[in-house]
Amino acid sequence: MNLGKLLKQVAKGEVSAVDAENIMAAHGETNLGFARVDLDRLRRRGLAEVIFCPGKTADQIVCIMSALVAGGQNVLATRATPEQYAVVRQAHAQAVYHELPKAITLRMVEPGPPVGQVAVVCAGTSDIPVAEEAALTAEVMGARLERIYDVGVAGLHRVLNHVKTLQRSRAIVVVAGMEGALPSVVGGLVDRPIVAVPTSIGYGVNFKGLAALLAMLNSCAPGITVVNIDNGFGAGVAAALINRVGEPAA
Amino acid sequence: MNLGKLLKQVAKGEVSAVDAENIMAAHGETNLGFARVDLDRLRRRGLAEVIFCPGKTADQIVCIMSALVAGGQNVLATRATPEQYAVVRQAHAQAVYHELPKAITLRMVEPGPPVGQVAVVCAGTSDIPVAEEAALTAEVMGARLERIYDVGVAGLHRVLNHVKTLQRSRAIVVVAGMEGALPSVVGGLVDRPIVAVPTSIGYGVNFKGLAALLAMLNSCAPGITVVNIDNGFGAGVAAALINRVGEPAA
Amino acid sequence: MNLGKLLKQVAKGEVSAVDAENIMAAHGETNLGFARVDLDRLRRRGLAEVIFCPGKTADQIVCIMSALVAGGQNVLATRATPEQYAVVRQAHAQAVYHELPKAITLRMVEPGPPVGQVAVVCAGTSDIPVAEEAALTAEVMGARLERIYDVGVAGLHRVLNHVKTLQRSRAIVVVAGMEGALPSVVGGLVDRPIVAVPTSIGYGVNFKGLAALLAMLNSCAPGITVVNIDNGFGAGVAAALINRVGEPAA
Amino acid sequence: MNLGKLLKQVAKGEVSAVDAENIMAAHGETNLGFARVDLDRLRRRGLAEVIFCPGKTADQIVCIMSALVAGGQNVLATRATPEQYAVVRQAHAQAVYHELPKAITLRMVEPGPPVGQVAVVCAGTSDIPVAEEAALTAEVMGARLERIYDVGVAGLHRVLNHVKTLQRSRAIVVVAGMEGALPSVVGGLVDRPIVAVPTSIGYGVNFKGLAALLAMLNSCAPGITVVNIDNGFGAGVAAALINRVGEPAA
Amino acid sequence: MNLGKLLKQVAKGEVSAVDAENIMAAHGETNLGFARVDLDRLRRRGLAEVIFCPGKTADQIVCIMSALVAGGQNVLATRATPEQYAVVRQAHAQAVYHELPKAITLRMVEPGPPVGQVAVVCAGTSDIPVAEEAALTAEVMGARLERIYDVGVAGLHRVLNHVKTLQRSRAIVVVAGMEGALPSVVGGLVDRPIVAVPTSIGYGVNFKGLAALLAMLNSCAPGITVVNIDNGFGAGVAAALINRVGEPAA
Amino acid sequence: MNLGKLLKQVAKGEVSAVDAENIMAAHGETNLGFARVDLDRLRRRGLAEVIFCPGKTADQIVCIMSALVAGGQNVLATRATPEQYAVVRQAHAQAVYHELPKAITLRMVEPGPPVGQVAVVCAGTSDIPVAEEAALTAEVMGARLERIYDVGVAGLHRVLNHVKTLQRSRAIVVVAGMEGALPSVVGGLVDRPIVAVPTSIGYGVNFKGLAALLAMLNSCAPGITVVNIDNGFGAGVAAALINRVGEPAA
Amino acid sequence: MNLGKLLKQVAKGEVSAVDAENIMAAHGETNLGFARVDLDRLRRRGLAEVIFCPGKTADQIVCIMSALVAGGQNVLATRATPEQYAVVRQAHAQAVYHELPKAITLRMVEPGPPVGQVAVVCAGTSDIPVAEEAALTAEVMGARLERIYDVGVAGLHRVLNHVKTLQRSRAIVVVAGMEGALPSVVGGLVDRPIVAVPTSIGYGVNFKGLAALLAMLNSCAPGITVVNIDNGFGAGVAAALINRVGEPAA
Amino acid sequence: MNLGKLLKQVAKGEVSAVDAENIMAAHGETNLGFARVDLDRLRRRGLAEVIFCPGKTADQIVCIMSALVAGGQNVLATRATPEQYAVVRQAHAQAVYHELPKAITLRMVEPGPPVGQVAVVCAGTSDIPVAEEAALTAEVMGARLERIYDVGVAGLHRVLNHVKTLQRSRAIVVVAGMEGALPSVVGGLVDRPIVAVPTSIGYGVNFKGLAALLAMLNSCAPGITVVNIDNGFGAGVAAALINRVGEPAA
Repeated sequence: MNLGKLLKQVAKGEVSAVDAENIMAAHGETNLGFARVDLDRLRRRGLAEVIFCPGKTADQIVCIMSALVAGGQNVLATRATPEQYAVVRQAHAQAVYHELPKAITLRMVEPGPPVGQVAVVCAGTSDIPVAEEAALTAEVMGARLERIYDVGVAGLHRVLNHVKTLQRSRAIVVVAGMEGALPSVVGGLVDRPIVAVPTSIGYGVNFKGLAALLAMLNSCAPGITVVNIDNGFGAGVAAALINRVGEPAA
Repeated sequence: MNLGKLLKQVAKGEVSAVDAENIMAAHGETNLGFARVDLDRLRRRGLAEVIFCPGKTADQIVCIMSALVAGGQNVLATRATPEQYAVVRQAHAQAVYHELPKAITLRMVEPGPPVGQVAVVCAGTSDIPVAEEAALTAEVMGARLERIYDVGVAGLHRVLNHVKTLQRSRAIVVVAGMEGALPSVVGGLVDRPIVAVPTSIGYGVNFKGLAALLAMLNSCAPGITVVNIDNGFGAGVAAALINRVGEPAA
Repeated sequence: MNLGKLLKQVAKGEVSAVDAENIMAAHGETNLGFARVDLDRLRRRGLAEVIFCPGKTADQIVCIMSALVAGGQNVLATRATPEQYAVVRQAHAQAVYHELPKAITLRMVEPGPPVGQVAVVCAGTSDIPVAEEAALTAEVMGARLERIYDVGVAGLHRVLNHVKTLQRSRAIVVVAGMEGALPSVVGGLVDRPIVAVPTSIGYGVNFKGLAALLAMLNSCAPGITVVNIDNGFGAGVAAALINRVGEPAA
Repeated sequence: MNLGKLLKQVAKGEVSAVDAENIMAAHGETNLGFARVDLDRLRRRGLAEVIFCPGKTADQIVCIMSALVAGGQNVLATRATPEQYAVVRQAHAQAVYHELPKAITLRMVEPGPPVGQVAVVCAGTSDIPVAEEAALTAEVMGARLERIYDVGVAGLHRVLNHVKTLQRSRAIVVVAGMEGALPSVVGGLVDRPIVAVPTSIGYGVNFKGLAALLAMLNSCAPGITVVNIDNGFGAGVAAALINRVGEPAA
Repeated sequence: MNLGKLLKQVAKGEVSAVDAENIMAAHGETNLGFARVDLDRLRRRGLAEVIFCPGKTADQIVCIMSALVAGGQNVLATRATPEQYAVVRQAHAQAVYHELPKAITLRMVEPGPPVGQVAVVCAGTSDIPVAEEAALTAEVMGARLERIYDVGVAGLHRVLNHVKTLQRSRAIVVVAGMEGALPSVVGGLVDRPIVAVPTSIGYGVNFKGLAALLAMLNSCAPGITVVNIDNGFGAGVAAALINRVGEPAA
Repeated sequence: MNLGKLLKQVAKGEVSAVDAENIMAAHGETNLGFARVDLDRLRRRGLAEVIFCPGKTADQIVCIMSALVAGGQNVLATRATPEQYAVVRQAHAQAVYHELPKAITLRMVEPGPPVGQVAVVCAGTSDIPVAEEAALTAEVMGARLERIYDVGVAGLHRVLNHVKTLQRSRAIVVVAGMEGALPSVVGGLVDRPIVAVPTSIGYGVNFKGLAALLAMLNSCAPGITVVNIDNGFGAGVAAALINRVGEPAA
Repeated sequence: MNLGKLLKQVAKGEVSAVDAENIMAAHGETNLGFARVDLDRLRRRGLAEVIFCPGKTADQIVCIMSALVAGGQNVLATRATPEQYAVVRQAHAQAVYHELPKAITLRMVEPGPPVGQVAVVCAGTSDIPVAEEAALTAEVMGARLERIYDVGVAGLHRVLNHVKTLQRSRAIVVVAGMEGALPSVVGGLVDRPIVAVPTSIGYGVNFKGLAALLAMLNSCAPGITVVNIDNGFGAGVAAALINRVGEPAA
Repeated sequence: MNLGKLLKQVAKGEVSAVDAENIMAAHGETNLGFARVDLDRLRRRGLAEVIFCPGKTADQIVCIMSALVAGGQNVLATRATPEQYAVVRQAHAQAVYHELPKAITLRMVEPGPPVGQVAVVCAGTSDIPVAEEAALTAEVMGARLERIYDVGVAGLHRVLNHVKTLQRSRAIVVVAGMEGALPSVVGGLVDRPIVAVPTSIGYGVNFKGLAALLAMLNSCAPGITVVNIDNGFGAGVAAALINRVGEPAA
């Protein structure tokens, strides 16, 4: 089986997704040569394989996306450039580009209504793209979202206005650059699981987000957990998994 | 009001906890001079103020503990030396010392039955003290615990034997030193929220846990969140908060 | 002139301070061999030369102290061990040891009443020794002090209770370890000069205060300046110099 | 209320600033969606909210600037590119661009005469843009300025020529790259509050200003405080706040 | 002797390689002025001198290549840009460009059949260029290659499918970015010499491959050795040298 | 089955090793509670599980050692203190302590004659303990050893005297502290696989071996691979695995 | 006096250098506003002020150069781009550009014959620009030069061929990137003062020359001193100053 | 020949040094097993092999010392503890201990009169031990010494008093901790070769001398070279080698 060829045929509509799925399922490992697409991850890990776009050619992205579509899975591609999206759209007309988080989504299955509540909080205007990546990811994974933006610690009253909304959320993502103090302040106000995301906003000894990361790992408010710098995607996944813990089925 | 004196009276039984609570509640800020004890944190944050023992004298620990007891709260004191415990026990005979995690607990209120399930997984024998700190903390906060120890990645079959238990847990704490690879492996197997704890086990360019911390923050398995090196306490709090999301009342 | 011998005579009372001062003033450079004592610094820099005790023998400390006393200057010796003080006290009976900041003072001149106001704020109990070093230093330099301790960001209401006192101060020293977020919060509340002091309180990737230092240097609240980790002395000097700007004579 | 629309109307002159102010004051939080503009900061912190331009679109800058203008506040926008200014000027014709510090100012209120004295000292030609950012900021905040440039330690006589001017200043900003030794030398000469600013001038193990930052934090001249690398703005705010301490009203 | 001129004559075919070799052999040191080409290294070190292209002009590369060709040696040039290759091809028409590893080869001697077996394993699609550099290098040095790509630890079953192939190899090169966990997993499965190659794939606190490097150096699976970040060439040489140990002649 | 009890019985001779092995083999996982002993690793990885002693109590070491003995495996315990050995010897009288590498060995099976050749080279006297750990490990794994010590680069003639021995070895371990230059020099002389071991010998910006590690990872002599600082054990395993590649059976 | 204008007149020939010198000498400080040119440094420090071009506009370079020319001093401008030179040449037609070290020289005074001997040694082709900066600088300061290039440690015989030349030199500059081992090898061979220059040649954990710098600072060959990464200029000055120690007049 | 035994006989006087020398000279490599003593280094490198004591047992030191004595060479042993000296003195009664630099010397040959001049300058009292190590080393190597101590930059007049002495020296060693600014200041005053030695004096972000090291490597005064932190020995060797350049014989 020439899988690359098969996937191009799917992308062009020459082979239906159902047929392709059958063909591929008959082979143990879905091997594109340059990548092995994991069609079983949705069942095993709760979200389909996500395409991390940097370092991949637009053709490689299209190819992996086609394999996922052929597998009947919703697609999320993160950190995609507008140029990459332009190529993707030619193969997959329904693909949607989200400008702030620079992500592509493509829905194969109609989602159910969002459940629970995940709050995404960010400190400054420049942190919004990372916050949006977290929010979009959690939404793709089924969570209802609340966005609370530009509530940095230099204006404490801002975050204090939102304590009730925060307390009602199952999980809270807090995004901050600079000195990264916001998660500590939020963590002192409410008793919900908090996922802190340092951003690379800052200069000098900020070291592209390292200062904020260290602050978050050293927070005096216990129970705060942290993801890599600018990793809105990871925070969104974590928050969505926590959000599911609150569902009866979970 | 001389609070220091009041608390010593409570510790000796000369003043009842109820009376002391009334006395203190009449004052805005419970100020010991060297510390302000936050008797409202249990209600606000879901766990009472925890005493971090390093850098405190045994007398200071006793004093803060007395204030919490006077406030009718369960006490958890982390990273206590046996010497500190010896002094504490004289003031508070019911205080219990937990050798592996080096923690002191003192229960004022009978806990309800543990709920949900938190799994604590660790990679090697040397990681057990940190794992136990996480487990004890989560237990104090009401979670039912599953311990899975010494299942490092150099013997993959070990962790593979426990996938079902892991998948049934509401939250998983994964503790590992050295190269810190275990959370990635666990994260590839199950779709539950994972809190990774790097330990300071290692030498040379391990940099006392930094290598493991970096590995965990860079995990290719999405949704893993991380706490500071050796911070079993923080991981236990985070896991317990996630565990509560699964409770109907939450 | 054998200065070492002269100073020992002063320490023993065999030569009066006035006589010694005259003898020394007749020589260009006050050279103890291992140290050159700067008797002119009080006039030039606004505080007499301060003795940084680590790495010096008790005899060296006594010797430098004698030279300052001979010069009619008040003495401040920082980071002195109780053992060093025990030796100092034998030579200088009036020397006072301050346990928390581990400092020795010896007053030759009766100070005037303290002027202005410097506030010293600290986040946690463990930060108090550094805060006390700042406070003592500013007091030695003539400032009136306000101490506000244990008001960390995980309990925001604590610091909010003291805004009026802070706003009335000419300079504010804010001492914090862990994630070092307190200066940002204070800086968002009042418009006074703030000197932030990171402490080495913390563990893991706190890196002995580096996390707090970076946070303070990256504060989103503009106008905060920072000194070295645990450098309560430097913060006290800076605050006292700022306090003097408010004096008519300044 | 559609605030974004309102602000564009103000920028175009379709709504007067006074009217807009009234409209906004009637709403609790001035929320632009991507930013919450703090019109109360001037009163609370002593300077209006400053716009940090990197990472913001020119439209966002115009929008925030309009909100501040509508609030009757003077505007300072730092690290603006000429391209950003070109857009700003179309909306706000009175906005002025300062080439060396790359800052935009827009005065709504006629300032009173400058008070006190802030000296800004820099070591080399390449440090001047940072020095100018500090000077401009302090001027905007009402201080009288003295500039002393290119007086690095490799030519000691240069700085020695200016001791009198330095001693007369209420606050001194010292800007230096390379090995960052100038603040120590100045600090040994005068007893005024010194705010040291490391610059990113240097190469190799200068690490973009880290060498200078470390030198300044380790200065043997006590009382020197430090801001982040290249943070002329922060140093200017700190110096201006210190300068105000010397005013009778302060 | 003007060697630069001689080599250009060889490149143009005006002087035969054999003649040039004789001319050069008569001189002690093959000195191009900007480089001394080591024609004896093939005999002494088991591979001819390799040309590391970054920082060299295309003319310098052509010149060194000509010297090697004149010495009758196979050529391997690593990290060559397409632009550099374009110039090389004009002088040496038989030179081949390998796109993924960005390497140029030029065979002067027909190689014997490949011997033994070296496996090259990589974790993700983005690691392939480094893996290919290792594979190409080992092939040039005579090894038979097995490539196993995109078998990261987040899908453990992938690498488990290849244990037999791995166990049959004389040496295994394992290439991974992100958290660098794959070598530990492979090392726990088979008892062959493993050369781990961290790649610069990742972001934030990945620090361009440092996280993976540290993980590999701290692997709990003993016997893993490591090369510099992205150093596929070095890993290929090491693996080929190990592979030769298995040859009877070795 | 109470395994802890069983192993103590084996240690005391109350249960024979053969009986214990049968008992344990009947259970899936050899779980000591604090450790899971991997009796299958010898077959799977080519060396039995090695006991890394730091952070383990002497009792834990005895216990794991007993499990291995019960499994009929040779024991190697690294970085054991004399105090730990004193306890071990009481349970296992045949255990041998190696002072320089601080290792304990206990042979259950008579080894065959050593095969092939591994050379261990070290730069200075202080590097010998690490070199001996490598040598002992490789010997335990069946290799014939050649030791060449104190041949640092500041006396080049020393290493030049041993080129023939080096060239005859299947694998070479090169141990060096300070600037770590010796592997590059050896690598320029011979074409055998080289495993470089940086040691923590040095001071100041040596950073406890980091300088040597970086030098080795950056070696201009291709094909050098590196292990963690002071990791003589890891280097010995790697060299022994390479040495086996040269055996007909391999 | 408008000095900027004066210097432009000198550059255009409208005012003679002698006249300008007289004009300037009448003013205490030669202040260009953006720079103070130190015309006395040649006498005081042994070399005229050198212009470090990065971060300066071509106009600023011309201006400073004119001031030096007006002062009758030879000019050395380092790290100049060809674009900067193009502008400089229009003002100063005699200025010469040196391509490899990217430096501009302009001789006002005819130099005497070179004295003594400085050897500049470099490890690889890519290190030559730094080596040439050192050589040019030392030549400008009057030293006779010997260049020995591409003699890295992976081919030991190369450097061994030049021991006699090295031993005859008064000072030796050794330039190396990668692992920076060459100074140790040279230092083991001869007893002359060695100035080591790390270069930024390398990748991965080379950290742009840091690996080489650390190696050189940790050299086991005593008496080696080090300058900043790529600082050929500094090494040239140091070597020239040492070279002068050998002159009778010194 | 059993060399260890031979050297013990020399130490006890059972074999004369002359006899031992003859015995050893008859063997190619003076191999102590744990060390190879280089008796030829004095001729080749200008100073005999120096014994770096940390990490060596007192017996090893005695043994190497005996070999050097047997070779008729003067001995310098650095960083020796009083305990090590106590053992050494028993074997070599003429050995002298220098308390400040913690060094042992043993003269076999009467030195000629000291030549030239090396100045050793240090910033503070705590830097003296390092300064003394440099001074002693240079003296052992034949230089005349000038010591100028405690002349830190916070009191500029101190160093200004010694400019003439500095200018008369052939080489200047400048020792400083804290911010390491002193070499820049000295370098701006005189045109002699300067070897800068950072010391580990400081705290917090001094990082045990790293701040001073970076400052010195980044000095704006050209021609300063640097050695490792606290490496007084290396600086002394470098200065002595420079000092010899000024001798007619050199």
